[in-house]
Amino acid sequence: MAKITAVSPLAPAEFPSLPAIAGVQFATVAAGVKYQGRTDVMLATLAPGTVVAGAFTRSSTRAAPVLDCQEKLGRASDEGAAILVNSGNANAFTGKSGTASVNAITDAVAQACNIPQGRVFTSSTGVIGEPLPHDRITACLDTLSKTTSVDGIAEAAKAIMTTDTFPKGAQGQVEIDGETVSIVGIAKGSGMIAPDMATMLVYIFTDAQIEQEALQALVSAANEETFNSITVDSDTSTSDSLIVAATGTSGVSVDDHEGFAYALLDVMKNLAHQVVRDGEGATKFVEITVTGAASDADAKIHGLAIANSPLVKTAVAGEDPNWGRIVMAVGKSGAAADRDLLSIRFGEVEVAKDGWRSENYSEEAAAAHMKNQDIVIGVDIGIGLGMATVWTCDLTHGYITINADYRS
Amino acid sequence: MAKITAVSPLAPAEFPSLPAIAGVQFATVAAGVKYQGRTDVMLATLAPGTVVAGAFTRSSTRAAPVLDCQEKLGRASDEGAAILVNSGNANAFTGKSGTASVNAITDAVAQACNIPQGRVFTSSTGVIGEPLPHDRITACLDTLSKTTSVDGIAEAAKAIMTTDTFPKGAQGQVEIDGETVSIVGIAKGSGMIAPDMATMLVYIFTDAQIEQEALQALVSAANEETFNSITVDSDTSTSDSLIVAATGTSGVSVDDHEGFAYALLDVMKNLAHQVVRDGEGATKFVEITVTGAASDADAKIHGLAIANSPLVKTAVAGEDPNWGRIVMAVGKSGAAADRDLLSIRFGEVEVAKDGWRSENYSEEAAAAHMKNQDIVIGVDIGIGLGMATVWTCDLTHGYITINADYRS
Repeated sequence: MAKITAVSPLAPAEFPSLPAIAGVQFATVAAGVKYQGRTDVMLATLAPGTVVAGAFTRSSTRAAPVLDCQEKLGRASDEGAAILVNSGNANAFTGKSGTASVNAITDAVAQACNIPQGRVFTSSTGVIGEPLPHDRITACLDTLSKTTSVDGIAEAAKAIMTTDTFPKGAQGQVEIDGETVSIVGIAKGSGMIAPDMATMLVYIFTDAQIEQEALQALVSAANEETFNSITVDSDTSTSDSLIVAATGTSGVSVDDHEGFAYALLDVMKNLAHQVVRDGEGATKFVEITVTGAASDADAKIHGLAIANSPLVKTAVAGEDPNWGRIVMAVGKSGAAADRDLLSIRFGEVEVAKDGWRSENYSEEAAAAHMKNQDIVIGVDIGIGLGMATVWTCDLTHGYITINADYRS
Repeated sequence: MAKITAVSPLAPAEFPSLPAIAGVQFATVAAGVKYQGRTDVMLATLAPGTVVAGAFTRSSTRAAPVLDCQEKLGRASDEGAAILVNSGNANAFTGKSGTASVNAITDAVAQACNIPQGRVFTSSTGVIGEPLPHDRITACLDTLSKTTSVDGIAEAAKAIMTTDTFPKGAQGQVEIDGETVSIVGIAKGSGMIAPDMATMLVYIFTDAQIEQEALQALVSAANEETFNSITVDSDTSTSDSLIVAATGTSGVSVDDHEGFAYALLDVMKNLAHQVVRDGEGATKFVEITVTGAASDADAKIHGLAIANSPLVKTAVAGEDPNWGRIVMAVGKSGAAADRDLLSIRFGEVEVAKDGWRSENYSEEAAAAHMKNQDIVIGVDIGIGLGMATVWTCDLTHGYITINADYRS
């Protein structure tokens, strides 16, 4: 695995200032799971009664911590809860020892934080197929549980990084009846997966008061439009996890409140975009909007076929307005399309209309758009009302360098 | 599009010696469709009564010549037939002008060869979205039809090349009741698609005597195990075409003859492998065999998920026995799998067994296999009897260089 020291050219200028959420505290430690000289474990403690929802990878080979979280999610409880995440080892494809490690860690967290084991959620990210040295983590729990702070989220964002070139954070507020509800989140991820070092993990915290079923419904719906609408390389981690915790400490109920739903979606979209902007080797951020498909689901299938096409992604890298590759990707997607109704835009430049090169086609204008850092591709299928937007990055020599170097 | 002058390191030592097939003649010409200084049109004439079968891209944006071939295929006829192929322009995404070009060419071939227009099959490969200058082709038909020769197949293989780094040919014979039936074939293709210049085209000729339905059944079945079991970059051309013509001139009936079916499969597999060996930027040829899946179809889904994974392909390029990426690809494929029953081999080296790193795991032995030019990956899903083999190549800096350079 090549060491990547440079920060992605698509990174935000700085990590945002995130407000503290009453009832949520963070601690980090350098446990030496694999890395040396950096933090690699974060603990988030959650106030009694905190409601937890989530979304996870659909991989049939998903890791032990994912299976454990999925089992625990949705249980109602008035007790406290905690999230513990380590980087450096994914505890994936580790058989029975993987489950044993999860049990050891959740048991230790439960004891240190004085909460039920069923309220401890864990994630692991890093190398696959190697037993997790969980003793190194449990040995730190006393320290972790005694050093939590409401201001620790920026450090938490750093502790969960693997191949990420920058820590990822986002926040949003919504005013409800004169009261402020806050949402903050952190994420990690750079390849959609690189089992040596990567995976996508997202943790979002809010002081909103909400029923578990309502929160889960919001999270599931927003997940489809955010983390399930991004792709770096079409590869899916065995460990991808999104956990959303609502402490209720604001005392403001947000059940059925559209403003809260929108603010949550916004924070999730912001974090999803940051994951793409840290895509391995990325030099361009690409937004693909498909309209006129037979259904929204079909529009997403077309969008992801375009976003995952190596030929489209290399064309973007080469600043080449190669719309023929878009036609190809739509054709192979499997979703309904009619060749002679297809229209394609790069930015504001119409390059193809009704199944042929646009009458107004200007290679110069299309090429000018491709020189931007943020590329916008619009595809109208022309047969229905379905639409979807997906995001990806380009495919460059940097991706090959990162992923083809011998595992060290 | 970068000029690639070097021949693929995976190319066969030389173009094979292909026997003449009685009733099949070839001619080529430099029509100047796009390229200068090389042949770019080939004509194959087929004896009266020749039976024609085929298989084509399933793309919903497929090109006009493909639609025309699909419509004509399977019509019984005692008359002669012809195949005309041009390189340099794909006549794809060209709207009504595309259909008009196909009509103009097939009409001209029919007149020059004195056969019905319904017996003329065409393919076009090259740039997408630009009107085909079909006048340059029809202007050459008099010359083409007067210069056909039974020995012209090697030249035909060159005329249909685009980004190919070597011409592709294969042959097989089968003895039936003391008589020899011959099969010869040529192919082109290097990216699964690169709409500027590429597409996969295959033409196979045999002197066997066979019913159209029987030939079509053989071709469809063999296609699944050969051309539909290879992938270079997961992208599918709008023009992929396979045409198999049986002249019957040997006088030997091969209906229901297993030896013929096997020989045809063998020629198709040989050509399919050559397409992979000319994969853009390829430095390794990869065979992936999946066993123990719930069904053969599931095995193929797993196999193609592995073969299309950028992370698996870059690991092969880096000679990295990174079996975690195989686990990831199986997990994301969508076909049934049980993490704790999965086993993986690189060559003869067992790297994972029953859901965890093999007890006998040797990084050194696995790494030694990855240094070979031909890589063999074996995956046992452990839940059923389904199996499939697919072939691909690695993903290298060469692929990025070829496809990310500005279209010239």
